[in-house]
Amino acid sequence: MSLSSRIIDLNADLGEGVGDDEAMLTVVTSANVACGFHAGTPAELLATCSAAVAAGVRIGAQVSYPDRAGFGRRFMDMTTSDLIADITYQIGALEAIAHSVGATVDYVKPHGALYNTIVHHEQQADAVVTAVAELGHSLALMGLPGAVVIRRAEDAGLPVILEAFADRAYRGDGTLVPRTEAGAVLTDSDEIARRVVGLVTENQLTAIDGTTISIAAQSICLHGDTPGAVGHARAVRAALDDAGITVAAS
Amino acid sequence: MSLSSRIIDLNADLGEGVGDDEAMLTVVTSANVACGFHAGTPAELLATCSAAVAAGVRIGAQVSYPDRAGFGRRFMDMTTSDLIADITYQIGALEAIAHSVGATVDYVKPHGALYNTIVHHEQQADAVVTAVAELGHSLALMGLPGAVVIRRAEDAGLPVILEAFADRAYRGDGTLVPRTEAGAVLTDSDEIARRVVGLVTENQLTAIDGTTISIAAQSICLHGDTPGAVGHARAVRAALDDAGITVAAS
Amino acid sequence: MSLSSRIIDLNADLGEGVGDDEAMLTVVTSANVACGFHAGTPAELLATCSAAVAAGVRIGAQVSYPDRAGFGRRFMDMTTSDLIADITYQIGALEAIAHSVGATVDYVKPHGALYNTIVHHEQQADAVVTAVAELGHSLALMGLPGAVVIRRAEDAGLPVILEAFADRAYRGDGTLVPRTEAGAVLTDSDEIARRVVGLVTENQLTAIDGTTISIAAQSICLHGDTPGAVGHARAVRAALDDAGITVAAS
Amino acid sequence: MSLSSRIIDLNADLGEGVGDDEAMLTVVTSANVACGFHAGTPAELLATCSAAVAAGVRIGAQVSYPDRAGFGRRFMDMTTSDLIADITYQIGALEAIAHSVGATVDYVKPHGALYNTIVHHEQQADAVVTAVAELGHSLALMGLPGAVVIRRAEDAGLPVILEAFADRAYRGDGTLVPRTEAGAVLTDSDEIARRVVGLVTENQLTAIDGTTISIAAQSICLHGDTPGAVGHARAVRAALDDAGITVAAS
Repeated sequence: MSLSSRIIDLNADLGEGVGDDEAMLTVVTSANVACGFHAGTPAELLATCSAAVAAGVRIGAQVSYPDRAGFGRRFMDMTTSDLIADITYQIGALEAIAHSVGATVDYVKPHGALYNTIVHHEQQADAVVTAVAELGHSLALMGLPGAVVIRRAEDAGLPVILEAFADRAYRGDGTLVPRTEAGAVLTDSDEIARRVVGLVTENQLTAIDGTTISIAAQSICLHGDTPGAVGHARAVRAALDDAGITVAAS
Repeated sequence: MSLSSRIIDLNADLGEGVGDDEAMLTVVTSANVACGFHAGTPAELLATCSAAVAAGVRIGAQVSYPDRAGFGRRFMDMTTSDLIADITYQIGALEAIAHSVGATVDYVKPHGALYNTIVHHEQQADAVVTAVAELGHSLALMGLPGAVVIRRAEDAGLPVILEAFADRAYRGDGTLVPRTEAGAVLTDSDEIARRVVGLVTENQLTAIDGTTISIAAQSICLHGDTPGAVGHARAVRAALDDAGITVAAS
Repeated sequence: MSLSSRIIDLNADLGEGVGDDEAMLTVVTSANVACGFHAGTPAELLATCSAAVAAGVRIGAQVSYPDRAGFGRRFMDMTTSDLIADITYQIGALEAIAHSVGATVDYVKPHGALYNTIVHHEQQADAVVTAVAELGHSLALMGLPGAVVIRRAEDAGLPVILEAFADRAYRGDGTLVPRTEAGAVLTDSDEIARRVVGLVTENQLTAIDGTTISIAAQSICLHGDTPGAVGHARAVRAALDDAGITVAAS
Repeated sequence: MSLSSRIIDLNADLGEGVGDDEAMLTVVTSANVACGFHAGTPAELLATCSAAVAAGVRIGAQVSYPDRAGFGRRFMDMTTSDLIADITYQIGALEAIAHSVGATVDYVKPHGALYNTIVHHEQQADAVVTAVAELGHSLALMGLPGAVVIRRAEDAGLPVILEAFADRAYRGDGTLVPRTEAGAVLTDSDEIARRVVGLVTENQLTAIDGTTISIAAQSICLHGDTPGAVGHARAVRAALDDAGITVAAS
């Protein structure tokens, strides 16, 4: 077990108008703040940034397709220049809001369909990386290990934050079991907590087919809007604390 | 005639999807770029900023109430915190877009109903000033001489840019003749150009009641979306050039 | 006690993405369905109408200013023609959605700032009444007894549905105690239920100053999104049932 | 030449805030009115319907993906139920607006990326047909001959209106030359007018490869927002009038 694996970040989506943000801010160390394109008004961005600052939680820009009606969960076939402009706009808006409460935006985590698309979609992955790189101030990109967007970010010299999912089952090849399949989402707090501790201390977890797979993650994504979400999050945090693992934004 | 009066800025609203932006950018020295709340998509902001950079034109944030359906022309009764958040969000979004094309946002010009409201509405004027001041990087506020928002901006130590309107009639008390009244809008290019030259060289113009009034302005607003707009703008520019007046963003 | 006072409708706001719609549909007899201008996507309108049909609950159009960011809670200074167009658009959209699940829209209840404005604002009250009347199929207008919009609706020959608020304190003059004042909102389920029963059987309730006032209401508004909302609603329904009062859309 | 081929409808997109609606209404017999999802506010819908009524022009609902920022030109991967709800919402909204000025909506013409998608995309084509069919009052569906959506509409017993494009080049197989290819858009008014007359009288036109192809169309789409659009439209109308062809909504 390497020393570096004993520090872990916990991230969650906040400011989306769903879930219990207040409770989640007592657990996580990174807040993925909705920027207004899938959820969040400027006033909600401001309130979320203020709460994150008060809780000592790092702020990331949760950028999305421009699709409020669909909560950013629908693929949109966007041109490179349109997508760059949309990403830049959202990050800049959140940065100004964060600045007004004495904070900064430290990373970017694409949301919903955009997140899933840039795991494999080269043109859109490039657009996201270009937008972040052009801002010029070393924003990190948070994403799935092995995603196209992560490779492109590294090629562009951007810092990356690899994440794993606390409550999702993995396949033997290290990809997530799709939500449409049985067993895709774990619902037992103890099991979720145990998996996360194993993941952090061993860089390993058991896939749905019973095999042991290696996962390198600097952050664990906790869902805030599912039934039992806050309970799961608290169980994970307590288990990490008990195991002597430092929970901190890296 | 003071030397300072021989330099004048010309500003116009751009990126609103109306009018001939390309032509106006050959005439003006300051572009009030719509930020997406009354008009403008991120892609349009990007295109407008690029064009402004190419033309050597200064960029300002044309912030608005969140009212696309009404083009920002309808008063909204907003709380201080909501309005601050909206203004901050828009400026930050445009700043990031401008930065991505190597430019900066140098000033803020409220749009439409917000512009008119903060001439007299103290709570909203304060909110706008607070939002701009909290950004912390010396953005100037463009507005009407005598407006509450200008006084508050000066009290807050913000730079201000006073503007006059090329094609609008003034009352004897220095206020604009409302558009609903006869003679409110001038339509003759030569007359408009003569008035602007007089305004710049003498700091004076003739009010609708025949009296001579004093107007101190650092910038002249040219409309880009009215019939004959480009013709008026070119006539004003030519007349200023002929009069040996330097047209430049101050 | 008149016979007519022994039948009462219960209404609540639904489809707003807040509160427990499923639970409220077991209690109320009229659903004020958000039409997309302050809340609600077309898919949410469809789901809400389907659920209302399944529960045997009457559908009303909860029309709003076009202000999603402010949840329709901010006054907007709209022209008569703009407001008519907005109201007509929303009702027509909901009618088509309702029709697709075999239902009809039976009444219109303005939302938020629009509701409050047309209690006194003649121009906007007229616009709402004109929009509803021009649809031509006898939609009722739900509102506060004594409101300008109710008088105008009656003048226009529209059916009206007068409503009272289960959990709000009233002044001696029959107006609501503003939410900004102490005691404005009742929070005890038993007290709320008793008040509603008294209101229905006696057409009277006790004002905040201790006086007894007369309130004629055909419908009682139950809030669905406040703490304890579902508990209050169930208590009201149970008390009405116990008192032998028929709860039904009139 | 059959008698039926001597009557033709001319349609154009209106109410999109681009182009010269007033001029186009003197030429066309069917107005595809934007419903607010890619363009158009309720007030603009109302103005457009009023103008169409005054001009004696038939009204159709130009339904779109919910994508104002992209003007409805970007594919969105929507679920069947989401798309049905969106289509139903838009048609209902326009129907109410049309009704308020004494008119009806007679047909549906999908816009932009949705139009192109349902030429081949079975799931979305089915969703559009289902939405229109469920409205239950014999709205016609306007589209491209051979499109999946047209076949499905016919299967569902809906009336269809087949259309051809006045200013677009066709391939030998009857499909349109993509806009990205040279020669895709015709720009000579006389040539456009001659092609339309040939199309109407002979049901034939010359493809880009020189072959003669058969096109059965009940309506000709005229673009209103391209350079020279009004000139082309007037030339087409004059040529049809000269040829003794009746221009009318069928």
